[in-house]
Amino acid sequence: VQLTYALPSPAHMSPLGQQEVDRRAGLLTGWASPGTTVEMTTTHTGPASIESMYEEYLAIPALAESVLDGERRGADATIIGCFGDPGLDGVREVASRPVVGPAAASMALAATLGHRFSVVTVADSIRHPLRRLAFDTGVEAALSSVRAVNLTVLAINGDHDSAYAALAAECKRCLADDDADTLVLGCMSMGFLGAAERLTGELGVPVVNPVRAAVHLAETLHHMGLAPSRRAFPPPPKVTAGTAVADLLLTADPHPTP
Amino acid sequence: VQLTYALPSPAHMSPLGQQEVDRRAGLLTGWASPGTTVEMTTTHTGPASIESMYEEYLAIPALAESVLDGERRGADATIIGCFGDPGLDGVREVASRPVVGPAAASMALAATLGHRFSVVTVADSIRHPLRRLAFDTGVEAALSSVRAVNLTVLAINGDHDSAYAALAAECKRCLADDDADTLVLGCMSMGFLGAAERLTGELGVPVVNPVRAAVHLAETLHHMGLAPSRRAFPPPPKVTAGTAVADLLLTADPHPTP
Amino acid sequence: VQLTYALPSPAHMSPLGQQEVDRRAGLLTGWASPGTTVEMTTTHTGPASIESMYEEYLAIPALAESVLDGERRGADATIIGCFGDPGLDGVREVASRPVVGPAAASMALAATLGHRFSVVTVADSIRHPLRRLAFDTGVEAALSSVRAVNLTVLAINGDHDSAYAALAAECKRCLADDDADTLVLGCMSMGFLGAAERLTGELGVPVVNPVRAAVHLAETLHHMGLAPSRRAFPPPPKVTAGTAVADLLLTADPHPTP
Amino acid sequence: VQLTYALPSPAHMSPLGQQEVDRRAGLLTGWASPGTTVEMTTTHTGPASIESMYEEYLAIPALAESVLDGERRGADATIIGCFGDPGLDGVREVASRPVVGPAAASMALAATLGHRFSVVTVADSIRHPLRRLAFDTGVEAALSSVRAVNLTVLAINGDHDSAYAALAAECKRCLADDDADTLVLGCMSMGFLGAAERLTGELGVPVVNPVRAAVHLAETLHHMGLAPSRRAFPPPPKVTAGTAVADLLLTADPHPTP
Amino acid sequence: VQLTYALPSPAHMSPLGQQEVDRRAGLLTGWASPGTTVEMTTTHTGPASIESMYEEYLAIPALAESVLDGERRGADATIIGCFGDPGLDGVREVASRPVVGPAAASMALAATLGHRFSVVTVADSIRHPLRRLAFDTGVEAALSSVRAVNLTVLAINGDHDSAYAALAAECKRCLADDDADTLVLGCMSMGFLGAAERLTGELGVPVVNPVRAAVHLAETLHHMGLAPSRRAFPPPPKVTAGTAVADLLLTADPHPTP
Amino acid sequence: VQLTYALPSPAHMSPLGQQEVDRRAGLLTGWASPGTTVEMTTTHTGPASIESMYEEYLAIPALAESVLDGERRGADATIIGCFGDPGLDGVREVASRPVVGPAAASMALAATLGHRFSVVTVADSIRHPLRRLAFDTGVEAALSSVRAVNLTVLAINGDHDSAYAALAAECKRCLADDDADTLVLGCMSMGFLGAAERLTGELGVPVVNPVRAAVHLAETLHHMGLAPSRRAFPPPPKVTAGTAVADLLLTADPHPTP
Repeated sequence: VQLTYALPSPAHMSPLGQQEVDRRAGLLTGWASPGTTVEMTTTHTGPASIESMYEEYLAIPALAESVLDGERRGADATIIGCFGDPGLDGVREVASRPVVGPAAASMALAATLGHRFSVVTVADSIRHPLRRLAFDTGVEAALSSVRAVNLTVLAINGDHDSAYAALAAECKRCLADDDADTLVLGCMSMGFLGAAERLTGELGVPVVNPVRAAVHLAETLHHMGLAPSRRAFPPPPKVTAGTAVADLLLTADPHPTP
Repeated sequence: VQLTYALPSPAHMSPLGQQEVDRRAGLLTGWASPGTTVEMTTTHTGPASIESMYEEYLAIPALAESVLDGERRGADATIIGCFGDPGLDGVREVASRPVVGPAAASMALAATLGHRFSVVTVADSIRHPLRRLAFDTGVEAALSSVRAVNLTVLAINGDHDSAYAALAAECKRCLADDDADTLVLGCMSMGFLGAAERLTGELGVPVVNPVRAAVHLAETLHHMGLAPSRRAFPPPPKVTAGTAVADLLLTADPHPTP
Repeated sequence: VQLTYALPSPAHMSPLGQQEVDRRAGLLTGWASPGTTVEMTTTHTGPASIESMYEEYLAIPALAESVLDGERRGADATIIGCFGDPGLDGVREVASRPVVGPAAASMALAATLGHRFSVVTVADSIRHPLRRLAFDTGVEAALSSVRAVNLTVLAINGDHDSAYAALAAECKRCLADDDADTLVLGCMSMGFLGAAERLTGELGVPVVNPVRAAVHLAETLHHMGLAPSRRAFPPPPKVTAGTAVADLLLTADPHPTP
Repeated sequence: VQLTYALPSPAHMSPLGQQEVDRRAGLLTGWASPGTTVEMTTTHTGPASIESMYEEYLAIPALAESVLDGERRGADATIIGCFGDPGLDGVREVASRPVVGPAAASMALAATLGHRFSVVTVADSIRHPLRRLAFDTGVEAALSSVRAVNLTVLAINGDHDSAYAALAAECKRCLADDDADTLVLGCMSMGFLGAAERLTGELGVPVVNPVRAAVHLAETLHHMGLAPSRRAFPPPPKVTAGTAVADLLLTADPHPTP
Repeated sequence: VQLTYALPSPAHMSPLGQQEVDRRAGLLTGWASPGTTVEMTTTHTGPASIESMYEEYLAIPALAESVLDGERRGADATIIGCFGDPGLDGVREVASRPVVGPAAASMALAATLGHRFSVVTVADSIRHPLRRLAFDTGVEAALSSVRAVNLTVLAINGDHDSAYAALAAECKRCLADDDADTLVLGCMSMGFLGAAERLTGELGVPVVNPVRAAVHLAETLHHMGLAPSRRAFPPPPKVTAGTAVADLLLTADPHPTP
Repeated sequence: VQLTYALPSPAHMSPLGQQEVDRRAGLLTGWASPGTTVEMTTTHTGPASIESMYEEYLAIPALAESVLDGERRGADATIIGCFGDPGLDGVREVASRPVVGPAAASMALAATLGHRFSVVTVADSIRHPLRRLAFDTGVEAALSSVRAVNLTVLAINGDHDSAYAALAAECKRCLADDDADTLVLGCMSMGFLGAAERLTGELGVPVVNPVRAAVHLAETLHHMGLAPSRRAFPPPPKVTAGTAVADLLLTADPHPTP
């Protein structure tokens, strides 16, 4: 199986840097099943990281292009490289092969492991968007709470130890106060830090790493010959009528001929 | 009250054309209360119309810029000029004054007029996104059904009579089969055709015109001194930390210095 | 627009007194849009104030008469002058023009301003009735909590400062403990004290004044030519069959002819 | 056990007549368990029958008085004699002993007999009020549908055969189209016609007679020493502070001393 | 009315002992209405008590046999003698007469007494199964919380005073923290200790004894001629096709003829 | 990965027969990922097939033993071999390694592929139990409908062509009438007939084969080092206190020593 892991930002030019991008690509390869290769892509334009809905919307157009590029290079399936599943429904409308969102993948996985799961994410500002993703996935009845460490993505990547401590503290609150029995890390950076595996051991409950949940869901879909429903994510009517995807965007000529 | 009605597309260069844009601007002025002025804006880039989530995401970045431009020119409040409320939460994060989405405005209004309302929109492909908007607004318990005429926005604008007939037919199905007692037109083009007013008379139930619902909600917020909650739509953390909104978008230099 | 604000009690003869009734009428006029006049009416019989469902039911028959009287005097729309929306559905069945309930109006407005709103009201005893109003309006999914100051309506009107302090304290609990981002004052007396406007400034979240929400909804319905759905609030079958509304009430002759 | 069955109308002076009132009182006595006596009371004022929310509200004040009178005569518990449970919460606030609503009683009973129940009632206009009663009782998740025969109460009592035929037809629709497995008759007149028992036999599913469900719930509460929760239905604050229930209603002197 | 109270375990050979079984049988007879007799049965095999789903499943096959045996001896209705309602749906499929589950009976009763009820049970491990029973009964919207004393059934029966103290403490938490107004004891042992009656007096809210709720529901069904719906609990298709219930279980011959 | 696929019945001695058991074992091996082995086990006692809740409960005790046996032989994870997920929660309480239910696995997978899924199963009698499984998994909001072909398991296995035709007909009803965009086969026999793959091609929507969904979920859990939450499925308190699982079942001595 050939997968694309599409980062929704030019992360290599951001403070995150190419080195961290490469480290993550290595982890992905290690986590995938034998026979799976994973290509990690970045965009030419986008926010440095996604910590608000505004940045999420900024990211989507270039992310979609990058998904289609990956398909042209032969990807069997694509993973959106951000826990907010930015543009997942829109990208599925124009993609040819399965596109997987890590939030949907990990929340659906968590739903099979207990009665109620909580998500621990980066910032309070995306708590409602994550509840909306649970609604979109249809698992909101199993969602116990969404809590946030309120650290920036940069801070998480900058000081792993205090990020882990903050994360563990919120996870414990989910168990003690919110009646959760299963946890989901609501941030890919947390996933790439190995926090889920360590917390699973320390807290005695399953803590889902969204990176790995997404990789295995992509593999599963490929093995089973399944793809997201075309009835749920139909192509844009203009595309059905013959317009190329790339021509859906009109741009006013800044120097029109008079 | 000075309002901006922000079209999320370069509609003037689309088949819709400048003439229709002007006709709509005139209607807006007529519908607004005495003392309200409405400026209609278009974007420099975007889809010709929004009939899919993919096109909705393409539209948001330029739409957000156009909202901020309107605020700089003195708008007291902005109306997103598309029933899908594209980017509403993200735009609210970066805007200084109230931003109103017509779907949220008209569904909330419909909720006060009866027990169960239905939305009639353009295409089946946006039925789930509209249910998600009802979830976002918190009125999904009052949403009876979402039905679609399955006409393109262009067809609606091209042949008013058959568009109206298709619309009336779906509205009647909502009343006969879905137990609705109130209706919402799920498309701004339908609103600008005067269909809501005509259907209210013919069907004997209130049919909400989303254009007018949004205008009056914007006026109401201004009169009451209210704005969307900053706790619900906080500014991006990077902006709070000092980054300008315009600098949130990074773009790789296509010709980097070696 | 000519509005009636129908108090569901003979408030002028209650401890509230004619002076306070007049003060409120003045505020209403100031809050309404230019071109709107508001007449404030009281009933000939009813409870001094409504702090229980029992008193709410006592109030409805005379309130309904007073609404119909207002319509006979030319009211374009009526506002029920109590946050419990007493008898709203029943009054709509017999009224000829729009009747607006302030709870429905303010909860629907709050739903458009954030993700989750709380209501702060006078007494614990009406917390469930207010949840039922949220159910009736279809916004219960957005209702975060209902909290009460547990002061009598008289105490609220008697000592404004401690009423405001109690109110502010409960509002802060809604934000800190109940995950609300928007607030609704669940009592008209609180609305007439200017508490919503002051709290909006002090708490940094929108606090809806139900008096003003109801006035602007009534204006909006009038401007848009909309009224509550007749399918939702049909006239009593006996009225359809010819009985006058006033003749629906039978009374046994206390001195029947033998 | 001594029960009061409180009719919310002066039914003896209505077209229903004293004879039918007496016939129903006889049935009640036959249906009650050995050792239970049932007194049937009417009010001095009220609507001839309840077919709308407006008539329901007209009925409540006199009904409440009649419940309190029954308690003074020694009733251990009272049954509200109308399927709409008119004023149930308000009456419970001022009553000293258990008050039972037949809708709540029969819907809760139906919930124990299958997975999904439907209610068949008299008029479309009370379909939403019955859904609200299911919400109030907390059983809305088990409510499959509410259907109506759309006959007046008088017509039901006037032509038993066609009333039964209409009723049976709607019941069959609930089973065939709404996925119900259990039925509730949503009208006391239907209950007193013996329709539930006959339909149970003919349709092969349990059909709950609300009259009998209410009688047995009242007996059960008495045997178990239980009453409605005072936390849910607290006395009016003014009563707690010393005002007599009868003094809660103020009436303006029509001929005030100058 | 002749009832069977079917214990789902060989309680007489467990630490509970025959003496306690006899004491409970005596209480049942005292609680039943005049004219009702109750036979208490135990099984030949099963767990000593049910404190986990695993033990619940172990108990069901022998419990079902014991219900059918009771019917053969003339029972008009059977009460499952465990608050988990073990196997209720399966037993109803093969039983000829009404089978009542105490959880369903007491939760439905509680739903009629207030707005929100909590259940206090023995162990955290069965909190989710009890929520599932509320779902099955259709009353989950009225379920405020499920709390547990986390004592073993043996400990509850061994030290009544500290069991009562633990129980009262959890009940108070439900009232103070979970907004409950009505309580249900989620354990039959608690019911047989008279705790519900004592707590009702001490806490000032109705506390439902599930034993008595089940007895009176069984009596009510018998009086009303109602039984669980055959559409909800149809006989196994093989039984409809002629197989005896006892022959549904195949067992491999441990010493097959070669 | 070494998996056990535990059939909850002595299927080899049932009309299904050893040959079909062997054919299915072969399919499982083919469907599993490289490196996965699957052992198929049957029980020594149980129903021939599960078509009712009564048969499901009959099956669980021996099924649980067979799961524990498989673990003793080295299984890394177990799949319950029946779509009803019989005893899943109870078995998880006593198992040492992950136990996967195919209903939970396939419904969670379906939730990631579209907005609303339907389940098509064998008999109307298990429609409610499947809705309860959706509740247990937390995905009931995404469950569009449950439909049944109403064929016996034997008939499905006896005449593949008409079984397929009946299945396809119900699937089409889910798409046409129930607004589903994704389907789940609610029966393992259907899964082993290759129906999901054929229907996916013919209907143009994803149709989930529960057998394969369960296999890949088991593999995913093993790869990720995750297991069902011990907080959700704790061991029986008696086991924690030292009792062996096998000793939880007491059996009365049929020939007690006097």
